Amino acid sequence: MRIPAVVSTRNEALAAELDNAISDKTKPAGSLGRLETLARQIGLIQSTSSPAIDRPSILVFAADHGVVAEGVSAYPQEVTWQMVENFLAGGAAINVFARQNDCAIQVVDAGVNHDFGQRAGLVDRKVGPGTRNFAEQAAMTPEQCSLAMERGMALVCELPGNVVGFGEMGIGNTTSAAALMHKLTGAPLADCVGAGTGLSPAGVERKKSVIEAALRRHAGVDEPLAVLATFGGFEIAMMTGAMLQAAHMRKLLLIDGFIVTSALLVAARLHSAILDYCVFAHCSDEQGHRLMLEHLHARPLLQLGLRLGEGTGSALALPLLRAAVNFLGEMATFSSAEVATRAG
Amino acid sequence: MRIPAVVSTRNEALAAELDNAISDKTKPAGSLGRLETLARQIGLIQSTSSPAIDRPSILVFAADHGVVAEGVSAYPQEVTWQMVENFLAGGAAINVFARQNDCAIQVVDAGVNHDFGQRAGLVDRKVGPGTRNFAEQAAMTPEQCSLAMERGMALVCELPGNVVGFGEMGIGNTTSAAALMHKLTGAPLADCVGAGTGLSPAGVERKKSVIEAALRRHAGVDEPLAVLATFGGFEIAMMTGAMLQAAHMRKLLLIDGFIVTSALLVAARLHSAILDYCVFAHCSDEQGHRLMLEHLHARPLLQLGLRLGEGTGSALALPLLRAAVNFLGEMATFSSAEVATRAG
Repeated sequence: MRIPAVVSTRNEALAAELDNAISDKTKPAGSLGRLETLARQIGLIQSTSSPAIDRPSILVFAADHGVVAEGVSAYPQEVTWQMVENFLAGGAAINVFARQNDCAIQVVDAGVNHDFGQRAGLVDRKVGPGTRNFAEQAAMTPEQCSLAMERGMALVCELPGNVVGFGEMGIGNTTSAAALMHKLTGAPLADCVGAGTGLSPAGVERKKSVIEAALRRHAGVDEPLAVLATFGGFEIAMMTGAMLQAAHMRKLLLIDGFIVTSALLVAARLHSAILDYCVFAHCSDEQGHRLMLEHLHARPLLQLGLRLGEGTGSALALPLLRAAVNFLGEMATFSSAEVATRAG
Repeated sequence: MRIPAVVSTRNEALAAELDNAISDKTKPAGSLGRLETLARQIGLIQSTSSPAIDRPSILVFAADHGVVAEGVSAYPQEVTWQMVENFLAGGAAINVFARQNDCAIQVVDAGVNHDFGQRAGLVDRKVGPGTRNFAEQAAMTPEQCSLAMERGMALVCELPGNVVGFGEMGIGNTTSAAALMHKLTGAPLADCVGAGTGLSPAGVERKKSVIEAALRRHAGVDEPLAVLATFGGFEIAMMTGAMLQAAHMRKLLLIDGFIVTSALLVAARLHSAILDYCVFAHCSDEQGHRLMLEHLHARPLLQLGLRLGEGTGSALALPLLRAAVNFLGEMATFSSAEVATRAG
């Protein structure tokens, strides 16, 4: 597998040009806050002082997790495929928010434990019928992990537009994400494990014990791709590959919640410059996400107490991306509008 | 002047119906966070379990302030009318964000110190050419204050739709808003006075001294409408009237930043039930706004470091209102989508 190269967006001349353009808009300096830093970032990603949001897509990767055999989720495994059906029928939250915000979605079967047959609207990239139980053995073989990543890269190559949002569905995948977080950030496991779709405190304790035991079993696994293969999932590995490819192609990456960010943790260990391309849509209510974001020095756009996944935070943040490029492109300047600047 | 009655939206039966509808959506309970409380609130405002966002408008009230003679703003007074021209030409931030989010705006001359003549797109409700300098005398006569409020009420009566956003423009109006905040919340003046459009620390100190002296001069003014007349502005009083009328008509009030919230402080002292109708769009970076919101037990939707006014936060929050009613109206239910509920 060849990991796509990712270069920094750093460009002093363009940054200065963007800063000047933003300063000349008819508003007090800095008064559009985060939208100003966002406009600057998008300009740098697109290498232009006239950035635009073009045909955004959200990829929703679904897969199953062998570790659910340990009783780590509040929902049964069949909810993964049932929710995929819900995505295909247009009835899930991500469908609603993507429709509202004029965003395409692609639903990708990365490895759901269900035979969907040939289905219109479902992108079949199934690596296997769910991962193995990482409490017993590595979730993926190295070959499966590479295959998942490569399929993620290939998917992004075919996407139109310059914004890729990431979303996921997979009963049990907060367990994978918590293990990845612990291994890749060094945060104490207790800070990484949360309620997921709604575990009781006792359920959270059980989930933590399962991960603790698995960490002991797989002690010595530390290299990022080995960590991904051992504790990750097909949807997580596919996202990691897709993210690297998207940054390689200088697309903007719209990062959703806890599980999506866990895929980014792996990608950022391979190419830290990928963070230049990331807009963090929101801070999830899932315990651990805030710490993940801090680890990445990331400031999320929205804080709405979401903890649904699917890419819902990404879809909800899209209007703010558009607002950033729109103010830069459409607002009058002090000189063009004949508005006086500061009194002195 | 007759103050419109405002009744609470409390309705236990409808609240239970909304809670059930939200719980039955295909997502873990509570996983849409603030959007769920927002959907519930909008349903209660509209007295229906099928709320909708219909033809939202943002009213942008502009006026001048006599107190600018004391040197309390970083910008000269003529910026008020110049920015009104910018609104009319479509080049200001509020124009950009309202266009993007399919929201009508009305620009209202509540009392700008400028003769615009008859202008297409400008709603002339001028009470006077700016208020008097409240460092010397009450900003408005009681009659002017009532007239401004009544004109605000009348404007709302003519609006289509069920959402009214509020915005403002007026060089010097953070000085009025800071004085109102101090008088109506009891917060120490130092916590109420901020940099406005960009004062230096010395400028903030000067602004604080001006307000302190005015508070001494007008000691004993405590009744909300008297406080409004003494320290307010034409745009603030017009907003207070418009807000009361909008809540009376069971419209949703989209509350912007520091100055808009100062108008609401007055309205809430007259009818505290108005808060049931308010969605707080964002927390401004203007010092004092966070404390104002805390005083009102308000949780803003966005935290983007905005401090521009004009209603920009209101316009940016609109997609979240739509997301709230859309998930409630469009998402599948567990039974309709045949998705399994919790494992037990």
